[in-house]
Amino acid sequence: MKRELGGKGAGLAEMSRVGLDVPAGFTLSTKLCALYAEADKEGKGSQLLEKAGAVMKEVEMGVKFIEKQMRRPIPRGSSSKTSKDGELPLLLSIRSGAAVSMPGMMDTVLNLGLNDVIVEGFCSSPTTSEAERRFCLDAYRRLLDMFGDVVLSIPRVDFESALTEMKRARGVATDAELTADDLRELCEKYKRVYVDRGKTFPSDPETQLRKSIEAVFASWKNPRAVKYREINKDCAGLEGTAVNVQAMVFGNRDDDSCSGVLFTRDPSTGEKKLYGEYLVNAQGEDVVAGIRTPENIDQLAVQFPRCHKTLVDWCDRLENHFWDVMDIEFTVESNKLWILQCRSGKRIGAAAVKIACDMVDEGLITVPRAVLMVEPRHLDQLLRPRFDPGDLAGDADVVAKGLPASPGAAVGTIVFTAADAEAAKKRGVDCVLIRVETSAEDVGGMHASCGILTARGGMTSHAAVVARGWGKPCVVGCGDMFVNERDKTVRFQGCDAKFKEGDAISLDGDRGLVIRGSRALIASIADNGDLARVMRWTDETRRIQVLANADTPADAAIARANGAEGIGLVRTEHQFFSSPERLRAMRSMVLASDDAARTEACDRMLPFQREDFEGIFTAMAGLSVCVRLLDPPLHEFLPPKKSQELDRVARDVASNAGEKDVGKILARAERMREANPMLGMRGCRLGIQHPSVTAMQSRAIFEAAKACADKGIRVKPQIMVPLVATAAEFSHQANVIRDVHAEVFAGVEALPFEVGVMVETPRAALVADKLVRAGAQFLSLGTNDLTQMTFGFSRDDVGPILKTYRENGILTNDPFERIDELGVGLLIENCAMMARAAVRELNEQWQEDQSKPKGDKTKVKIGVCGEHGGDPASVRYFASDRVALDYVSCSAHRVIAARLAAAQAAARELDAL
Amino acid sequence: MKRELGGKGAGLAEMSRVGLDVPAGFTLSTKLCALYAEADKEGKGSQLLEKAGAVMKEVEMGVKFIEKQMRRPIPRGSSSKTSKDGELPLLLSIRSGAAVSMPGMMDTVLNLGLNDVIVEGFCSSPTTSEAERRFCLDAYRRLLDMFGDVVLSIPRVDFESALTEMKRARGVATDAELTADDLRELCEKYKRVYVDRGKTFPSDPETQLRKSIEAVFASWKNPRAVKYREINKDCAGLEGTAVNVQAMVFGNRDDDSCSGVLFTRDPSTGEKKLYGEYLVNAQGEDVVAGIRTPENIDQLAVQFPRCHKTLVDWCDRLENHFWDVMDIEFTVESNKLWILQCRSGKRIGAAAVKIACDMVDEGLITVPRAVLMVEPRHLDQLLRPRFDPGDLAGDADVVAKGLPASPGAAVGTIVFTAADAEAAKKRGVDCVLIRVETSAEDVGGMHASCGILTARGGMTSHAAVVARGWGKPCVVGCGDMFVNERDKTVRFQGCDAKFKEGDAISLDGDRGLVIRGSRALIASIADNGDLARVMRWTDETRRIQVLANADTPADAAIARANGAEGIGLVRTEHQFFSSPERLRAMRSMVLASDDAARTEACDRMLPFQREDFEGIFTAMAGLSVCVRLLDPPLHEFLPPKKSQELDRVARDVASNAGEKDVGKILARAERMREANPMLGMRGCRLGIQHPSVTAMQSRAIFEAAKACADKGIRVKPQIMVPLVATAAEFSHQANVIRDVHAEVFAGVEALPFEVGVMVETPRAALVADKLVRAGAQFLSLGTNDLTQMTFGFSRDDVGPILKTYRENGILTNDPFERIDELGVGLLIENCAMMARAAVRELNEQWQEDQSKPKGDKTKVKIGVCGEHGGDPASVRYFASDRVALDYVSCSAHRVIAARLAAAQAAARELDAL
Repeated sequence: MKRELGGKGAGLAEMSRVGLDVPAGFTLSTKLCALYAEADKEGKGSQLLEKAGAVMKEVEMGVKFIEKQMRRPIPRGSSSKTSKDGELPLLLSIRSGAAVSMPGMMDTVLNLGLNDVIVEGFCSSPTTSEAERRFCLDAYRRLLDMFGDVVLSIPRVDFESALTEMKRARGVATDAELTADDLRELCEKYKRVYVDRGKTFPSDPETQLRKSIEAVFASWKNPRAVKYREINKDCAGLEGTAVNVQAMVFGNRDDDSCSGVLFTRDPSTGEKKLYGEYLVNAQGEDVVAGIRTPENIDQLAVQFPRCHKTLVDWCDRLENHFWDVMDIEFTVESNKLWILQCRSGKRIGAAAVKIACDMVDEGLITVPRAVLMVEPRHLDQLLRPRFDPGDLAGDADVVAKGLPASPGAAVGTIVFTAADAEAAKKRGVDCVLIRVETSAEDVGGMHASCGILTARGGMTSHAAVVARGWGKPCVVGCGDMFVNERDKTVRFQGCDAKFKEGDAISLDGDRGLVIRGSRALIASIADNGDLARVMRWTDETRRIQVLANADTPADAAIARANGAEGIGLVRTEHQFFSSPERLRAMRSMVLASDDAARTEACDRMLPFQREDFEGIFTAMAGLSVCVRLLDPPLHEFLPPKKSQELDRVARDVASNAGEKDVGKILARAERMREANPMLGMRGCRLGIQHPSVTAMQSRAIFEAAKACADKGIRVKPQIMVPLVATAAEFSHQANVIRDVHAEVFAGVEALPFEVGVMVETPRAALVADKLVRAGAQFLSLGTNDLTQMTFGFSRDDVGPILKTYRENGILTNDPFERIDELGVGLLIENCAMMARAAVRELNEQWQEDQSKPKGDKTKVKIGVCGEHGGDPASVRYFASDRVALDYVSCSAHRVIAARLAAAQAAARELDAL
Repeated sequence: MKRELGGKGAGLAEMSRVGLDVPAGFTLSTKLCALYAEADKEGKGSQLLEKAGAVMKEVEMGVKFIEKQMRRPIPRGSSSKTSKDGELPLLLSIRSGAAVSMPGMMDTVLNLGLNDVIVEGFCSSPTTSEAERRFCLDAYRRLLDMFGDVVLSIPRVDFESALTEMKRARGVATDAELTADDLRELCEKYKRVYVDRGKTFPSDPETQLRKSIEAVFASWKNPRAVKYREINKDCAGLEGTAVNVQAMVFGNRDDDSCSGVLFTRDPSTGEKKLYGEYLVNAQGEDVVAGIRTPENIDQLAVQFPRCHKTLVDWCDRLENHFWDVMDIEFTVESNKLWILQCRSGKRIGAAAVKIACDMVDEGLITVPRAVLMVEPRHLDQLLRPRFDPGDLAGDADVVAKGLPASPGAAVGTIVFTAADAEAAKKRGVDCVLIRVETSAEDVGGMHASCGILTARGGMTSHAAVVARGWGKPCVVGCGDMFVNERDKTVRFQGCDAKFKEGDAISLDGDRGLVIRGSRALIASIADNGDLARVMRWTDETRRIQVLANADTPADAAIARANGAEGIGLVRTEHQFFSSPERLRAMRSMVLASDDAARTEACDRMLPFQREDFEGIFTAMAGLSVCVRLLDPPLHEFLPPKKSQELDRVARDVASNAGEKDVGKILARAERMREANPMLGMRGCRLGIQHPSVTAMQSRAIFEAAKACADKGIRVKPQIMVPLVATAAEFSHQANVIRDVHAEVFAGVEALPFEVGVMVETPRAALVADKLVRAGAQFLSLGTNDLTQMTFGFSRDDVGPILKTYRENGILTNDPFERIDELGVGLLIENCAMMARAAVRELNEQWQEDQSKPKGDKTKVKIGVCGEHGGDPASVRYFASDRVALDYVSCSAHRVIAARLAAAQAAARELDAL
């Protein structure tokens, strides 16, 4: 019911249903808010509720229900006095509540129903005590304040300065010290604020109610709420806030009253005991504001023993009902317990896994429920060292904010070049690499640093992808940062200090924060067995395989440790930056003047590749390893245009290849530069241009596989052809690969292998059936490039565009982070559908065609190896019935989160049954 | 039947059916060739025909049919002598013939059936004359030669050197001078060649036949034939060649024999009279080889009056049967006329339109047939000056070959910079602009030159697109050209000369040739009324609208003159390079430091834009004009990185905008550079980032429209939002446009306009229904960018890739030239289908929803405005029932060809009925 009643409304309704004492009330649905907004656009909003007689009739019925439940009347008419002498009438609270919590974003009016006549009537009654008079006048003051602010847009500061003035005049520090008379005078001053601002406080409680409802509806569209929804992607698709109209109860009525908040279990440890605090004679907001130190919830058993007993019972009932840890607001009014709100309790990672395990053990929840209860960020938290999150709010040391590209915390000294980073690493110094943006040249330095910060780039920029691959904290697209590479200094907008090389800095990759100095880290928590248990459940629940992207034996080992069921993507290009000899061999290949020189360079590259593959195969013994052929434009392996470094490389290649003319080599390098390298000579286009490169890589793979097999290691090699757009491209490369396979295994028993396509161009997704017919044994969706080309967004340039688009509400998510189901998704669904149809047809033909030799049936695995393979929401989509891919492959460090997300997709379906 | 029987086989079958005398024969289908190739792959090809008893049984039946028809037996068995004394047996010819003509590509064996026994029997007969003996031995010699070459792969040079040797020994110049005895000796020498090469000539005629058929089938896969099919896109999809087995007839039998070729009408003028030539006592190949000067066909009436009369009659029958001009090979053997081959006669443009008109007038063909008879290249030929095509074959002055990017002939002096081109133009000198590649900066110089030649780029590179737009000859991607811009010289691979500025050069844009010196031009032919008549027919026939792309009033006037029904694309960015003030205003906008400065720059740009639009609206009075909002990345308007020119511009902007810090402006320019500008901040992304630019352009359009309307000119403005990927982007820009519209027409009657989407990203095509629901009134497929992103090909970088792909048979067409129906086509079909479904649904809702005000029904036009709109084959696809677009828009100079192609799509369907 959350979508219609909002989180708060749904919680209240459920609690009533379970039989807990909730102040009587009713909820106006989010749909009505949307209707209101619609009417408001046409300039009729302010009269909508008035005109919509039916709505106000329902409100009236609701109010009657409240009166009946609470067995007290609500005041009506501006001058009526419906309550008995010395008894306050029933007051109302009007609170917003959307389907997703938007803390502090929308408005609330409390104590609704008071006016001069009622207050005077109560206060002047001889049965009214001084404390009661004070309470009533304080309630009235608060109503005047909130109503003026929320409904009539009177600046709150007007009321606040009157209050401050009064406290100064009385020489007191806190509101509580003001007397009833002081408060009466304050009410008069507040009413004067209304007059000064040309506004009128409606004394008729019904008018107060109607206008308050309208104001809460209107608050949905206030700029800060709109902004909040833009920033928080969970809010996408919400159509409005609900309005909860409820009877007021008062924790500040007397000393037999209190207000408190609690969790049904400890949200930090998961321990099964009430966790919370309360304040005697106070309203809920006072607990949060921290005016007085609240009491621990255990103390409630002493101070309010009956209420405590009831509360414990109710908490059990809530957990039983919601199958979850609950976060509760309660109020005791004159020894009577009321629950004001309940919602799922936010918890940290360690608590989440313990609670999931405990609740299964208690028989409270099923395993699928337990799987759904743990969030990916819980696992992330458990597995990485990090900053104390409480530590950062409003921190003056936070000097800038960028995109949180790779989670985790990094602390180190600033360096500005890859070389400096590597030098620092050699000296044993932790460093943070700051660049305008990174390129393949920086990879060594990035690896050597403990965190990366760039001024440019989006969530899938080079820096982001590489850092995420290594699980290294990274903040990108920090537009307020100005790097002076020459001086080796950096400045931040709105921060006077200039930072230089060697200064300490901290990066919060979870939140995208840049923090001055060395911030302390909290270690990640050791597993007490609960984590392993939860992970076992996820693996038992999910139906989609989780593989990892890994480029080195070390990465592969991490992937396996994190539970990857194979390697779905080995990017061979990264391997060449790991040593000068490797880079040199690669550059000789890139700059080769003819096929002979290229073959010679390939021969030098072969042993490096073979060594890497042997390491990865060994690390993944028994599991499949999918190697992608060389993908990036070759000039990415060269130093920048016209650089001295390029001259040096050209001379090096010249002397190596016996080519005299360095100028010719430089000219060749120049010709390789492309206007749009992302759409240029790369991927299989390279392999078709230079089949010797494909042959060399295939040979390295098969020779490595053979060497492993000879040592008794089980290997399952797969070769993936990148950037395919047509079936003919794939066939060309597959033929080269198969020829090499036949050569390597000539005369011995051939090791089986698979060859498939990386589906990165929209065209490949459109002709998936033809790829299958051409013999592709797997289709691996490279969703990064697919997203680039489907949107026409360059990953490297998309930063400023996404910023503008988010600000204008044009995109709610970064499509490079969360898969675009509506557009890219259509291509993925088409790809899977067409490929499967082709497989079916091929197998039917194979069944029917008696003349053909009976081999294996055609099987084609379809998966994702782009960055989206590590995004929980995207994984849920890939695993859903709509797409039902066979696997996702993500960076080694995201494997655990992906396993969870895959399991949750299945668990949600199981749970729905 | 062409696909199955090949062109030759189908023609022969048809001619027999019509009752013409064709030497009896039969055709083995192309399917059998494909089967043969299949079997050959598995290494069984050579035995396939042998094993496939059924095939040889059919061949045997065919041979019996030939014998029956020709009333003579064919020799059987290696030593049999089945013919009567002094009479040659029936011999056979084995000729290949695919569905598409592949001249000289595949093999032929003639005179099949001869062997030593038969030849000796005939020659030694007392009734055999010396001439007959000579004829028989010559036939045998030719069989030995051809069979050795075609079937046994004996190098032809072996036979040729024997022949040359013989002629030298006898002291004669031509084969004809050799005596019967000489030829007998030559046959012995030929047989010795067989022995030397370790081969055997099979004397059994049946073996000769079987082996020849196999050889012709195998010749389908010979490297030069494969290569030919790779290069010639018409050959795409052919599965094999047919084999025609026919009785031999001999034009060289005696002086009552001859061989000839003719067209049923004059292919140069279209005149209705036989056009051709023949040689007495000669074989067909002798006519082509030009050993003796052939007689004009008119002479046949004198030399062979009866045959001539029959021939004239048969030509009429053929035209009546095929409804076309025919190209015929005939042979007279001893006063008996035979037709050996017929096919549609190739003709030049002027002839094509005259023949089409004449044949309609003669009642021979219908109008749709006439429309189908004219080819786009015919119109192209008619409309442009050009080089004499006969002039160029094997021309030593052709120094290089590139891609024929824009047809026509250009002759001028070489210049190397845009500035030099403009200076030359001012001096009244025709010049050819040579660049490594062109950019927007060069546009002025390109316009000033009469032809453009670039070293880089493909068929849709900047140079190609701009040149085609202007109908200016252009050759691009000339990889063998080496430009030294500093020295202002250019060299060509394989040509010693170095060309310098001012040297004369000629470009053949039809064939992509670069020619040394000033080559003479042939003027285009003036229309005698036939052309106009054909064009009227095309407009009556076609169902798809033809619009033009035009950026200036001058372009618009040309478009209108060529019959464009409106402007489908005005690219506003080109307008800014036409004067320094315009460029300056644009650059101020690009480099603006804030919104105020940008608005100020926009204010300066406004009058220029308004002026252009007014001119275009005026030129297109009464027709629609669709303006695309600014599309390219802004930095395209800036001079190159770190250039002095950029410094100057920055200083200029600084002084203009009152901004002090030139460094800041340069830094801003630097930040605008993108890694992949094609996928960067351009199109609607710019407009969303800077709504003031969209507003300025909209204002210029509406103000221009208003000014025209005030002058009584009917205007139909449309505004197109480029590079849309999501419906929200379109809505954002449409709102800005609608707001400006309301402002411009405040208080006066508003001029109607339409706003739509340029569908360039795959995503836009995928969500076309959502674009329609967001209010797009037209969807214009920008197939250039759509192709770029669907394949992942950068137009600017695709040249070398396409070259490799063509060489490897991976792509047969350039997808930027001819639409890729299989991939990009799926997106286009999806776009049209989804958009139309949305329109239907919207109109159904509108019908049902009584409460809504009744406005106009939703209508959405869907068309193409990419370069493909001018490619005839692509236009046929767009007009076909499968896609059925509403319009195509192409460059002004391609409008006529597009009108024809659109008409042909419809005519083909009419004709099928």
